[in-house]
Amino acid sequence: MLSKIIAETRSYRRFWQAESIAIATLKELVDLARLGGSARNVQPLKYLLVNSPSQNTKIFPQLGWAGYLKDWPGPVEGERPSAYIICMLDTRLSNGAECDLGIATQNILLGATEKGLGGCRIASFSRELQRILNIPDHLQILMVLALGKPKEKVLIEDSGPDDDIKYWRDATQVHHVPKRSLQEIIMVGQSD
Amino acid sequence: MLSKIIAETRSYRRFWQAESIAIATLKELVDLARLGGSARNVQPLKYLLVNSPSQNTKIFPQLGWAGYLKDWPGPVEGERPSAYIICMLDTRLSNGAECDLGIATQNILLGATEKGLGGCRIASFSRELQRILNIPDHLQILMVLALGKPKEKVLIEDSGPDDDIKYWRDATQVHHVPKRSLQEIIMVGQSD
Repeated sequence: MLSKIIAETRSYRRFWQAESIAIATLKELVDLARLGGSARNVQPLKYLLVNSPSQNTKIFPQLGWAGYLKDWPGPVEGERPSAYIICMLDTRLSNGAECDLGIATQNILLGATEKGLGGCRIASFSRELQRILNIPDHLQILMVLALGKPKEKVLIEDSGPDDDIKYWRDATQVHHVPKRSLQEIIMVGQSD
Repeated sequence: MLSKIIAETRSYRRFWQAESIAIATLKELVDLARLGGSARNVQPLKYLLVNSPSQNTKIFPQLGWAGYLKDWPGPVEGERPSAYIICMLDTRLSNGAECDLGIATQNILLGATEKGLGGCRIASFSRELQRILNIPDHLQILMVLALGKPKEKVLIEDSGPDDDIKYWRDATQVHHVPKRSLQEIIMVGQSD
């Protein structure tokens, strides 16, 4: 059921690194992105698929992890992503595609959940990444999807009355994500 | 299966207008949006739910429909949306949320498909809409989701070698959407 998949599609940042992900699997995930809607149907997003340990090692240090966890620099060796999908804007086709990017990455991450995988959207990365991956100038990296088999527990809970939405980890390293309530985000229009 | 729901989640613009959608149903859909990821977990999106014929009648003329179909001004009376979800940015919380908007609206539209409903993201609307709906200044309308029970057939097909991605309608009013091939949008990184 869709609601279950959506609820289980959380941001995961620690993985069973030794569990590799085949390029064929990454292609299946991007095919879900491909079928998502696109503003004016332009479809300006392109995807670089990476699953080799040597390339993963080059990508990892270029990424910023979990801004709210100040004492945590990111996953340790052994818990790092086993694949990446680099999401890029083809600037020959469009000058922006943030909404498309949300649609596409949601389809990918939902598909990952269905396959027992998980991942994290990373929008904080070094400009060096473009050069390291030999990405041509007309493709602009918008986001890095880090993927793997999740090795952490992520819990959604209601944000409290103090309106604090920062995610946090408890002593057992369970990751807690406060979500605003339905009541807080909905307004209902007049009825007849 | 997820891939089937994703493939069936197309932009629908003609509906069985008399088939109303309950506010409770709209709430279930927004709850799926609520569970989507959000940059820095800020969750700045708010949603106005509308399903009454009188309010629908006020909203409809403020919307722009299907830019590529120059001879089609939008659905006729009887085929118009039976509900709307107005997606708004709470500018007190963030100054932009386009990626969040893609994630949230994708969850909503996937949920709609599962319920036998469908809809269309509309980013072209009059500024008047804000006033007509009495939306306070701190909430900025980003997108209107038009919803209903679809009354049209939408086909995905491969975009041709001429790179034409404009959607079109054939003589039987079937709506065709050219999609770029997987091969066109994927690059594969070096293997070890």
